[in-house]
Amino acid sequence: MNFASDNVTPVCPEIQAAIDAQCQGNAPAYGGDDVSASLDRAFSDLFDHEVAVVPVSTGTAANCISLTTLVSPYGGIVCHHEAHINEDESTAVAHFTGGAKLLPIDGPAAKLEAAALSTYLESRADRGVHSVTPECVAVTQSTELGAVYSPDEIGAIGAICKQFNKRLFMDGARFANAVAALNCPPADITWKAGVDALSFGGTKNGAMAVEAIILFDPARRAEAEQARKRSGHLLSKHRYLAGQLAAYIDNDLWLKNARNANSAAQALATLLTDQGGQMLLAPQANELFVALPDTIAQKLRDAGMLFYSWPSLGTNAYRFVTAWNSDINAINALKTRLHGL
Amino acid sequence: MNFASDNVTPVCPEIQAAIDAQCQGNAPAYGGDDVSASLDRAFSDLFDHEVAVVPVSTGTAANCISLTTLVSPYGGIVCHHEAHINEDESTAVAHFTGGAKLLPIDGPAAKLEAAALSTYLESRADRGVHSVTPECVAVTQSTELGAVYSPDEIGAIGAICKQFNKRLFMDGARFANAVAALNCPPADITWKAGVDALSFGGTKNGAMAVEAIILFDPARRAEAEQARKRSGHLLSKHRYLAGQLAAYIDNDLWLKNARNANSAAQALATLLTDQGGQMLLAPQANELFVALPDTIAQKLRDAGMLFYSWPSLGTNAYRFVTAWNSDINAINALKTRLHGL
Amino acid sequence: MNFASDNVTPVCPEIQAAIDAQCQGNAPAYGGDDVSASLDRAFSDLFDHEVAVVPVSTGTAANCISLTTLVSPYGGIVCHHEAHINEDESTAVAHFTGGAKLLPIDGPAAKLEAAALSTYLESRADRGVHSVTPECVAVTQSTELGAVYSPDEIGAIGAICKQFNKRLFMDGARFANAVAALNCPPADITWKAGVDALSFGGTKNGAMAVEAIILFDPARRAEAEQARKRSGHLLSKHRYLAGQLAAYIDNDLWLKNARNANSAAQALATLLTDQGGQMLLAPQANELFVALPDTIAQKLRDAGMLFYSWPSLGTNAYRFVTAWNSDINAINALKTRLHGL
Amino acid sequence: MNFASDNVTPVCPEIQAAIDAQCQGNAPAYGGDDVSASLDRAFSDLFDHEVAVVPVSTGTAANCISLTTLVSPYGGIVCHHEAHINEDESTAVAHFTGGAKLLPIDGPAAKLEAAALSTYLESRADRGVHSVTPECVAVTQSTELGAVYSPDEIGAIGAICKQFNKRLFMDGARFANAVAALNCPPADITWKAGVDALSFGGTKNGAMAVEAIILFDPARRAEAEQARKRSGHLLSKHRYLAGQLAAYIDNDLWLKNARNANSAAQALATLLTDQGGQMLLAPQANELFVALPDTIAQKLRDAGMLFYSWPSLGTNAYRFVTAWNSDINAINALKTRLHGL
Repeated sequence: MNFASDNVTPVCPEIQAAIDAQCQGNAPAYGGDDVSASLDRAFSDLFDHEVAVVPVSTGTAANCISLTTLVSPYGGIVCHHEAHINEDESTAVAHFTGGAKLLPIDGPAAKLEAAALSTYLESRADRGVHSVTPECVAVTQSTELGAVYSPDEIGAIGAICKQFNKRLFMDGARFANAVAALNCPPADITWKAGVDALSFGGTKNGAMAVEAIILFDPARRAEAEQARKRSGHLLSKHRYLAGQLAAYIDNDLWLKNARNANSAAQALATLLTDQGGQMLLAPQANELFVALPDTIAQKLRDAGMLFYSWPSLGTNAYRFVTAWNSDINAINALKTRLHGL
Repeated sequence: MNFASDNVTPVCPEIQAAIDAQCQGNAPAYGGDDVSASLDRAFSDLFDHEVAVVPVSTGTAANCISLTTLVSPYGGIVCHHEAHINEDESTAVAHFTGGAKLLPIDGPAAKLEAAALSTYLESRADRGVHSVTPECVAVTQSTELGAVYSPDEIGAIGAICKQFNKRLFMDGARFANAVAALNCPPADITWKAGVDALSFGGTKNGAMAVEAIILFDPARRAEAEQARKRSGHLLSKHRYLAGQLAAYIDNDLWLKNARNANSAAQALATLLTDQGGQMLLAPQANELFVALPDTIAQKLRDAGMLFYSWPSLGTNAYRFVTAWNSDINAINALKTRLHGL
Repeated sequence: MNFASDNVTPVCPEIQAAIDAQCQGNAPAYGGDDVSASLDRAFSDLFDHEVAVVPVSTGTAANCISLTTLVSPYGGIVCHHEAHINEDESTAVAHFTGGAKLLPIDGPAAKLEAAALSTYLESRADRGVHSVTPECVAVTQSTELGAVYSPDEIGAIGAICKQFNKRLFMDGARFANAVAALNCPPADITWKAGVDALSFGGTKNGAMAVEAIILFDPARRAEAEQARKRSGHLLSKHRYLAGQLAAYIDNDLWLKNARNANSAAQALATLLTDQGGQMLLAPQANELFVALPDTIAQKLRDAGMLFYSWPSLGTNAYRFVTAWNSDINAINALKTRLHGL
Repeated sequence: MNFASDNVTPVCPEIQAAIDAQCQGNAPAYGGDDVSASLDRAFSDLFDHEVAVVPVSTGTAANCISLTTLVSPYGGIVCHHEAHINEDESTAVAHFTGGAKLLPIDGPAAKLEAAALSTYLESRADRGVHSVTPECVAVTQSTELGAVYSPDEIGAIGAICKQFNKRLFMDGARFANAVAALNCPPADITWKAGVDALSFGGTKNGAMAVEAIILFDPARRAEAEQARKRSGHLLSKHRYLAGQLAAYIDNDLWLKNARNANSAAQALATLLTDQGGQMLLAPQANELFVALPDTIAQKLRDAGMLFYSWPSLGTNAYRFVTAWNSDINAINALKTRLHGL
């Protein structure tokens, strides 16, 4: 069982079928096809708000193009130290935005906290053109450490952003897992909470390679589309991106997939605890961070589990990621099998 | 029949099968899978030269990442005015390279000519840091106007590049069509002719979204991979890119597809000539540029043909593009049907 | 006599005195001093329009920071092939603007012509995000080939810009020479003609190192100041920049200096013609372009003249530049001396 | 008495004289003059090492152009949180380098410590293209909090850089104050300690606007000069930059000026301590950080002193900066006058 990452998973059957369905005939390129044209409506319905949808192939592209519409080349982006944009996207943010600077701060489980954010923004003396002024705040939902912001938590951050006149961006590479965990309308943790733009992730949760930039102010579309083209992220056979996305939200597939991942994480947490593991963070979505004695870690590897050590949380810390295709029955069966050993 | 672009085509069956084959189980992300690992060997065999292969999703990414490894932020790239990098990629070249400047010149059928290139490079006074020094020459094979460079023509350009100490880049968005037309080993029009890096196109010729950056000096791989990640072009489920590419060159599928497109272009040229059209450029690959009286253009549209007017070649000029899925029998049948009308 | 360039001249006495006057005591840094604070008022009076003044040390900085406020990273700047921004500023325009592309066209004596500009803008098909949309037009006054736009000519270009919704930028490295030649209010060839921003040159005309960015819409000041700081062009001892500028426009020193340069050019043109030289362009400001037989060129060099050959205008073409310190009496005396030889 | 900053000072008489000396006649532009040509030799002698000297007008330009020669667009620069490049240069580092990222760490008095640096570099897991790899370490001498690295301290940092294969850059905006404090050869705290490039500051210490980029590997000159031109920092009347620099190091003027500033700081420290102030950091160069009761701060202001509060060191913290023109006798006299009050 592979818990190394949700990126190791294949495309799920429904999205595979959608890709196959696009293999039957010709269609206009660069988004001129019907399925591409349908996305704005579909996502506006999903979010209960008029949105502009700009699909791209990767999370880095989605994050950085979104940020390009929210910050100037002279501005700063407040984020968590653990944020993917800060730790895992090379120098992409500066590259796309023309120089905007990440301003990392701390918080539990890779979450920003409204009070700490407020303190940071307040204490950051504005020294005019010399210093970098924060123009945007970036949160990840669910976070890089598997935590989920509640609607109130996002709302509190949004209120601080409004008070200080900052934009709010959400990296939603695992947005589906957060919504599945919260069981709330997507609107409640996005535009209603003050989010200006969202990377709505598909790849980790069953798609091949698609993330949707969701702009809650559709007037930002033109710049996002220019930034997309300029960075080589406009696909000629755009319908294959659009087809993945359309299938992904059709019949709530995205939530079905995320629910499996989240449930598998709970089952896996039970197994790990049963083996003597100690959860380092409360399991809320599809990532588990657990302390394991060496012998147990080895035992799990011997049982065929794949997972990474996570040294930033300690020498005995490990990360397990479940996904849309995690087999909960198999996890439970393995738990039973390992229990007596 | 849709001759608007080869970008309107769907994925071909063999590549669809390769994508579907990746939908069966988990595999390492970010290129750690077996099919990704196989590409260097496969392409090195194809080109009879050790190469580094860096797959990306779009032609703009392939072109611009390649160029990033070949020019400095202070340098120039000599290309044809009609070059895709000059006319159809927004400001991507400057964005990726950090400022390198396109230096467009002219030539027949969007081809650079060795003599004109030599004259240009010789006449371009080097005024030190004030002026932009050409560091690279870029050709497109086949060109944006459907022409094909012979091995001798590329070789002559390569010799000029060597003489003036410039790098040589080839945009091969339709490289397959050129090789199919020339019926020569790919080596003859690339590294043997002095090409340093090639965008090996897949998307227009049957793939979904994949272009391979082929670096004939594998030492450039590290920078290309950094530039790829930094620009958001490293796919997490990299095997889907790699799978397309592997299938694309397996059993010479790329050439089979291109041969169909080229043959269809010849059949279509016969039809168009038969209708009174005048070829504006000799049809060599899969693009036709033809002058048509208004009545004939309308007649063809009435017969269900889709194609674009091409005003840069004249008021009655049109472009027709054939592809891997063009139905030659149907073209011939239509020719017969239209002949008497 | 050195006619190689107006950049070879020293600082003129009045500006030297202004620099010396700043050497007496402490004053606030970064523009907080009195003389810096006086510039907006002084230049607003000079131009009979509220302007924002942002001083920098070089023409490249003035041009590129101005352009940064006028174009996006995705846009184009229509200019003449001979424009300094196109030919003599390395890749600075792309560097400052984040990628904006120069779109050079032709015209006599390095001047853009309204009709040709209109044709160019009209013919340039907008292909959406694929192509680079011109957002700005850049003219140089006086031009790199010594020509001067009349108020009507600039006005006609400004009207085209307005019609096509483009910004208009003026590189005024030799703006003083143009105004001296035209003997018109500066307003007539700037904001009244539709110019949005101007590089008001000082260095070539008697200053040490100062050019003023003149923004006819003061709302652009904030971005210009951010771009200035970000590019390292905000001087800590800003009063030395400001002091040069204040002295430069005080008592019309800028025009006095330019008038001497222009008159010297006329005197020199007489000398050159007398020697058998043929003016290649009508002398309008302080640059002469002249065809000289080899023997005459040598004779002039033997007489102590320094000047450059100018191969882009022909094998026997030369450029002579006069300046604020050119000695008209000496030129006339030399003319007499050389006449009989 | 103005202790707000050393940037408030005028040009010192010797440099004023050097500027005036350049006002007598014509000379080649862009560094073709004799004084510009003399700098490499003069600085190579000063540093007892062959160096390339590239003069610019500002510290931000000197720092960022230096860094451009030391890091790639994908790399990181380890520096102190308080570093000027991190806190006071807007987004200039990313702008010049094409995206390189500042990686700030802590240390006493704005100094990096070798042990902490080693720990940081060791702990920073290399995750390939995903993460930003530190390529360079940047120190400031003397630091932004007035501390001076000893030769051993710089040497220890240089050894760590060598061990981890990182470049070492020194921001020497107040390099003269450090050398004056250490009374050591400049070589001992630069190339002998492993420094690759240095911003040798002039402006704060008596010049008008000049900083010398000192490249201890002269092979980096070409890139530095390209980066200088591309960023608009090549002055046409370059001799005015060069003249300032030549005068600045002639007869050890730079050290004479720095010694006055440092001695004035000691005298001022005595005054402040006498008044009940508590030094927050040991005064080593020309900056003092002191805690003052409100009444004393007001008393000093009433006595005509100008200085800034420094909230990052506490609510009662203040910074006093002395300079080349600080009047030590006046400070001592004021001390006596204030003593009894």
